Amino acid sequence: MTGWLAIAGLGPGDGTLVTPEVSAALACATDVLGYAPYVARVPVRDGLRLHPSDNRMELQRADDALRLAAAGRNVVIVSSGDPGVFAMAAAVFEALEASPQWQGIAIRVLPGVTAMLAAAARAGAPLGHDFCAINLSDNLKPWPVIEKRLRLAAEADFAIAIYNPRSAGRPDGFARALEILNEAGCGDRIVIFAHAVTTSKERIETLSLREARPEMADMATLVIVGNSATRRVGRWVYAPRRAP
Amino acid sequence: MTGWLAIAGLGPGDGTLVTPEVSAALACATDVLGYAPYVARVPVRDGLRLHPSDNRMELQRADDALRLAAAGRNVVIVSSGDPGVFAMAAAVFEALEASPQWQGIAIRVLPGVTAMLAAAARAGAPLGHDFCAINLSDNLKPWPVIEKRLRLAAEADFAIAIYNPRSAGRPDGFARALEILNEAGCGDRIVIFAHAVTTSKERIETLSLREARPEMADMATLVIVGNSATRRVGRWVYAPRRAP
Repeated sequence: MTGWLAIAGLGPGDGTLVTPEVSAALACATDVLGYAPYVARVPVRDGLRLHPSDNRMELQRADDALRLAAAGRNVVIVSSGDPGVFAMAAAVFEALEASPQWQGIAIRVLPGVTAMLAAAARAGAPLGHDFCAINLSDNLKPWPVIEKRLRLAAEADFAIAIYNPRSAGRPDGFARALEILNEAGCGDRIVIFAHAVTTSKERIETLSLREARPEMADMATLVIVGNSATRRVGRWVYAPRRAP
Repeated sequence: MTGWLAIAGLGPGDGTLVTPEVSAALACATDVLGYAPYVARVPVRDGLRLHPSDNRMELQRADDALRLAAAGRNVVIVSSGDPGVFAMAAAVFEALEASPQWQGIAIRVLPGVTAMLAAAARAGAPLGHDFCAINLSDNLKPWPVIEKRLRLAAEADFAIAIYNPRSAGRPDGFARALEILNEAGCGDRIVIFAHAVTTSKERIETLSLREARPEMADMATLVIVGNSATRRVGRWVYAPRRAP
């Protein structure tokens, strides 16, 4: 058996947002690895081994997946959303670089609907003009880099998608991010809090940045800060196509 | 019959990247509107009216779609990629704002795999760290705004996804964008040219920004400029998870 490794995105949560390409890979996999809540979304069947693991185990998981593929297994690593956006694809390539003996393994990256696209769709079209995506976790980058990027993103008048805004281990960063954006003159901008988007627990809140409170976000929240021209029409929020 | 309007993303090209949610909407639509090459990707069937239109007709197309939905039709507007990223969703909300009588129409935005995610997947994981997306078309924004955003994106050390880099009507902007990024010290960064990604005409080129030539891009190209830490492993390009 010739092994392979697919790094797949399951989309934001709803099964109708899993691409047929990803479903097909899962249907012929022998092994599925990933953070436990994502592995739990994969349909079980005879002959499929599930390897759920903990959140901070990215490099170990990538190594395990490469080892299984090298041994001839058909392996899928699953991420929520898109595997290339703050998810497992980069970790796999890091692991691959550290282990040249595996560089002949057949690898595919299977894209998915990342959280900011699903959140934007529920809210309207806040990413209809130029935008950026910033991971607020400082586990792998110094906090001053995040602050600098927030300030430059505000100056560029990008809409800003904020991933991983807040967790039990990082309770304060998002509060500071809101302060920075308020200081940068973004107080009147519209902010979207998209909680658990496309799941049964989905909740979308929109308000001005000035009114936003840190407690409105947790790890299941994707935050989108509109640009200076972002506006409402009825229940919708959108970025006009003309430059602000 | 109660009309509705779905604004749907068909993904980058390959049929296996169309979400089941979008396929389901198309399966029960009475009318499909969109730029002609995108409408041509919709499976034809009895009872489905196709309304292809020209590229620059976004607001007219949005008006037409709202009028059909108001008359009780089940309408899908199709975009390539994701409808919220430099595509039809913002145009529909602009049209809706201009026509309050239609604000009761049931509207849904159905997300899709936008070109930068598919391009990134083919190349590796160049969007694995913070990034931005800039539409290089100056049809709806002044060119100086684009220049300012490119400079700030370079200063923030974002990976930069460039949509619509070059067309027959805009032959010079992308050359200027490369100059700006070279002047900003990005000459050593890895650039990915992803042509017609996931189609039979797909072609992926990676080289340094300094070596990049304007003619390498056209309207079917998505360009990703890596951040300063983006690197190669074998045929892959990825952004390490640690901050550059």
